[in-house]
Amino acid sequence: MKRIGVFTSGGDAPGMNAAIRAVVRAGIYYDKEIIGIYRGYEGMIEGDFVPMDVRSVSNILQRGGTILKSARSTEFKTPEGRAKAYEQLKKHNIDGLIGIGGDGSFTGMHHLYKEHGIPYVCLPGTIDNDIPGTDYTIGFDTATNTAVEAIDKIRDTALSHNRLFFIEVMGRDSGYIAINAGIAGGAVSVIIPEEQTSIDELVKKLNEGGKHNKSSSLVIVAEGGKSGSAMEIAQKVKEKSSYFDTKVTILGHLQRGGAPTYFDRVLASKMGVAAVESLDEGKTDVMIGIVNNKMVYNKFEEIMTQPKYVHKDDLRIAKILSI
Amino acid sequence: MKRIGVFTSGGDAPGMNAAIRAVVRAGIYYDKEIIGIYRGYEGMIEGDFVPMDVRSVSNILQRGGTILKSARSTEFKTPEGRAKAYEQLKKHNIDGLIGIGGDGSFTGMHHLYKEHGIPYVCLPGTIDNDIPGTDYTIGFDTATNTAVEAIDKIRDTALSHNRLFFIEVMGRDSGYIAINAGIAGGAVSVIIPEEQTSIDELVKKLNEGGKHNKSSSLVIVAEGGKSGSAMEIAQKVKEKSSYFDTKVTILGHLQRGGAPTYFDRVLASKMGVAAVESLDEGKTDVMIGIVNNKMVYNKFEEIMTQPKYVHKDDLRIAKILSI
Amino acid sequence: MKRIGVFTSGGDAPGMNAAIRAVVRAGIYYDKEIIGIYRGYEGMIEGDFVPMDVRSVSNILQRGGTILKSARSTEFKTPEGRAKAYEQLKKHNIDGLIGIGGDGSFTGMHHLYKEHGIPYVCLPGTIDNDIPGTDYTIGFDTATNTAVEAIDKIRDTALSHNRLFFIEVMGRDSGYIAINAGIAGGAVSVIIPEEQTSIDELVKKLNEGGKHNKSSSLVIVAEGGKSGSAMEIAQKVKEKSSYFDTKVTILGHLQRGGAPTYFDRVLASKMGVAAVESLDEGKTDVMIGIVNNKMVYNKFEEIMTQPKYVHKDDLRIAKILSI
Amino acid sequence: MKRIGVFTSGGDAPGMNAAIRAVVRAGIYYDKEIIGIYRGYEGMIEGDFVPMDVRSVSNILQRGGTILKSARSTEFKTPEGRAKAYEQLKKHNIDGLIGIGGDGSFTGMHHLYKEHGIPYVCLPGTIDNDIPGTDYTIGFDTATNTAVEAIDKIRDTALSHNRLFFIEVMGRDSGYIAINAGIAGGAVSVIIPEEQTSIDELVKKLNEGGKHNKSSSLVIVAEGGKSGSAMEIAQKVKEKSSYFDTKVTILGHLQRGGAPTYFDRVLASKMGVAAVESLDEGKTDVMIGIVNNKMVYNKFEEIMTQPKYVHKDDLRIAKILSI
Repeated sequence: MKRIGVFTSGGDAPGMNAAIRAVVRAGIYYDKEIIGIYRGYEGMIEGDFVPMDVRSVSNILQRGGTILKSARSTEFKTPEGRAKAYEQLKKHNIDGLIGIGGDGSFTGMHHLYKEHGIPYVCLPGTIDNDIPGTDYTIGFDTATNTAVEAIDKIRDTALSHNRLFFIEVMGRDSGYIAINAGIAGGAVSVIIPEEQTSIDELVKKLNEGGKHNKSSSLVIVAEGGKSGSAMEIAQKVKEKSSYFDTKVTILGHLQRGGAPTYFDRVLASKMGVAAVESLDEGKTDVMIGIVNNKMVYNKFEEIMTQPKYVHKDDLRIAKILSI
Repeated sequence: MKRIGVFTSGGDAPGMNAAIRAVVRAGIYYDKEIIGIYRGYEGMIEGDFVPMDVRSVSNILQRGGTILKSARSTEFKTPEGRAKAYEQLKKHNIDGLIGIGGDGSFTGMHHLYKEHGIPYVCLPGTIDNDIPGTDYTIGFDTATNTAVEAIDKIRDTALSHNRLFFIEVMGRDSGYIAINAGIAGGAVSVIIPEEQTSIDELVKKLNEGGKHNKSSSLVIVAEGGKSGSAMEIAQKVKEKSSYFDTKVTILGHLQRGGAPTYFDRVLASKMGVAAVESLDEGKTDVMIGIVNNKMVYNKFEEIMTQPKYVHKDDLRIAKILSI
Repeated sequence: MKRIGVFTSGGDAPGMNAAIRAVVRAGIYYDKEIIGIYRGYEGMIEGDFVPMDVRSVSNILQRGGTILKSARSTEFKTPEGRAKAYEQLKKHNIDGLIGIGGDGSFTGMHHLYKEHGIPYVCLPGTIDNDIPGTDYTIGFDTATNTAVEAIDKIRDTALSHNRLFFIEVMGRDSGYIAINAGIAGGAVSVIIPEEQTSIDELVKKLNEGGKHNKSSSLVIVAEGGKSGSAMEIAQKVKEKSSYFDTKVTILGHLQRGGAPTYFDRVLASKMGVAAVESLDEGKTDVMIGIVNNKMVYNKFEEIMTQPKYVHKDDLRIAKILSI
Repeated sequence: MKRIGVFTSGGDAPGMNAAIRAVVRAGIYYDKEIIGIYRGYEGMIEGDFVPMDVRSVSNILQRGGTILKSARSTEFKTPEGRAKAYEQLKKHNIDGLIGIGGDGSFTGMHHLYKEHGIPYVCLPGTIDNDIPGTDYTIGFDTATNTAVEAIDKIRDTALSHNRLFFIEVMGRDSGYIAINAGIAGGAVSVIIPEEQTSIDELVKKLNEGGKHNKSSSLVIVAEGGKSGSAMEIAQKVKEKSSYFDTKVTILGHLQRGGAPTYFDRVLASKMGVAAVESLDEGKTDVMIGIVNNKMVYNKFEEIMTQPKYVHKDDLRIAKILSI
């Protein structure tokens, strides 16, 4: 393998730049040419390619976002779109791909591989930590810290005013950010997509807190859960509870950005090196993961059928600590 | 003067604890007893008082919120409520008051003084910087930095996806946070309560940015302006603009909390010392302010009739820089 | 078991307060009385005890340091000192101990147990991550992030001036902080206690960087390694290298403090709950660890004889990325 | 005026990039060509110039350091060196200069102007705030906040161990960072270059703190003062005081870097615009300053003979608050 294309796809996540940097530097170390592909599958179809040297990734390790930019491509979801992308790759003599993104990105590369035989390795990059086959995705550690820092600030004002706050965090299909931010933020309750939450029980719990002289409370809500949005849950609680003052904050996109933590930088760096090495060794159609502190190589079919849920024990811990 | 009561009132602001600490320490320095009054006027009416020594304010300088807590009292707005509060102050031999809060707090103390003769000094504590008679209020510097840090994170993701973000910051009647966060955040446009913004002009400006190959844009919106909320403005722009991807983030209450900046701690510390000193010198019915780097003592009547607007020149600067 | 004593010992680490809070809250959940012991073994000998309820641990989850304070006790290292401590524990009807600290703390509890039979569980709390039997110690994640944030700031000035910086991080016998901060900080070289570093090779590497047009470089040095301090290494390099401008920064104690990361808070919370549960189930003479994402209970004899080294593969990654 | 050169010189400071960006954008607004000069006077002599457009300053507003890099040039201190620099400027048709830096930078431009008549405006960029003619220099606000954040972390560990810390901050000839960080950090004493500090009085004060049951203390020391370094003062105190545990931390170069605060970004932005406007209006041989919230234009001779000292009243406040 001589020329490897690298790209980011789907929602951006802190640490993607560290992964790009590691791919480029490991590429140079192993004597490969690395070609950056802009704007994910969209740029792949359009041939928006640029050769990457050491200078091109200098001083990006600590930056949020992705210098290769990301986009969602509907065209690539069609065989025709993928054929166009393949033509571009062939034209530029790219004989392997490293993609950083979520399950959509993985699925795209899998189809490209099945249809056109281009080898690839996928790195899990998404703040939600909702990809099976890895204990951690690139970006999750940073996003959870960002959420917790915001929660710390909101706690200051909640305590000063004896208020009940509902704080909505990201994680459309996955409660990882919510449960970890909830334990770390001292939440009285955490509402995650994996579980149905009873408003009556929540109200009961909040009232008990009031009895224990608890003067303020935080409830963490993962966006998009079946129990409703933070706004909806707050409304229902308000109607049933005696709390005099209820507020809602939706953390939103600020959870996506910011300088990555050491953990995300190191994770992304290791995965980037492993991607170049494993692709060069002939591995393909896999997503790299870290499981029990070891790099693993997950076959597409093996993991994309599995669901990934938050650890049951984390829910238990959250419950014990929120007495 | 022997016994001085200190309290916080209205919305909490970072630096209030630094001000409380300064009042207590300056009190001890000048041989006064300092009595903490919990939950603003509500606690004053209920006699929720506690003597404060050095230990009671140890390790609070760097904390957001207010250890004396804050609340809004409707009862204190009536002469009867104020009479009750006065009885409590008399019963506890409190012969002077230092209140930290916004214009509502100032007005409350003014009425109490007019009706019952109890001397007071007010400190301007609010993140909005909307109080006349001072260049800066306690909390504004921290809140603006918090907003800017959030904007920096959102910029990461905006740049990665070529998105247009509308970011709503606090400042119901005042564009101070918005204009400063806008200049510091590199916003293409800042929408403040003091001005009517034309959606057509905004769209024109955004389209021009697109022509300059500007791949993403941030618009900062102060909450509660007559031009509408961030959500409403985003909706209108979406209908008229060619941008393919528009997002809204409402920063909300996280702007209230967090460790105060050095500026807010120093401002609060100086004002706290000045409050004890000026009350002891016989000043009353005044709000302390900092104007051109000097402490000033504003009479209630003099400033509460003035409006306070963002500097015209700041709007000009924002415009020049957002080409 | 009815009354459990909890204390912190050795150097403080971010997350110790989260562990104390978890012990107290889990204690209440499981109907135990929790007694706080101030200043580690010193306070144990002096009987400096205080009962802890929910209020006593409110709003401490996010704070660095330890509210129970820590101290090093020489007296406790003698059988006489431990006998005194035991008398105090007996007098206060404490029938179990949870200690949070490093290997010195573990050793102390082990001797107390062997001599007086008082059951205990130890939690690994130290920023250095130098305790065998656990993948992570409480405080390591935060300290490494603190180091990386400082390195990011220093990189700004290094880049602006084309300077070579030697940055000394904590980790007297262990290179964990150094190697992780080095990878995350984009260091050209990492010098750890586990390895002898050749100054000639380092100089060669730095000169190569110069050839690649690399305009500035960071070298991370763990304190107390056999290769010398950052100051000494910088001096030697200066004598041999052509770099025109060399600076040294010793990060020092700021790495100990600060609000813990979500990871340290969650780790400390889980370990605190596990400590109460395992002590109640009859476990004793163990240190709790987290290995491959699972709680483990390490017998004193099993782990205290093992060394703990940084992962060989991390050194390899650091080398590949620093081309 | 058609072509304006912009450069940074001396020690870098956070906000320099915001100033460069403002110069470039205001330049475009007013229809000027802006030429970036790399590495200060060194690059000016070598003709290391590059035209700057909007793209060249995109996404730099929030970055520490200076994208134009800085260097100290001994050659420029000679008339011959300045003649060479002038030749380069003439060759590239540069008919005005905007320099961002400290008093050395200002002096350099002044000589160039006197000898070769090239108009210039200087912006005060240095973290030390030691330049007369302005209330604030670009970078001071950020550096002081960085120092205070580090002090907050050190306080955590100081409190946990009842320790006395000596913390050395930057400010070789000026106590601005020290006095402000001292008030904001709750220091028991602040040692600045402007004043001789008596070790005996310091020890007395520290012992009094011990009597008040104060369990830990921070002393802030400005580097390079006549009272000695933090290390030297700590040593002297140790010999005379009863404190059992004394530590020293030298914050060093991390105070130079990091994302600028909103204040520094806004200050730099306004000054950058004012520089372009005033140069275009015919002003020259001046340094822009902000005094009492207004832009002022200081003639070289007027300010370079003045000393700049910390406010006496700040010392008084620090003393009252450190009881």
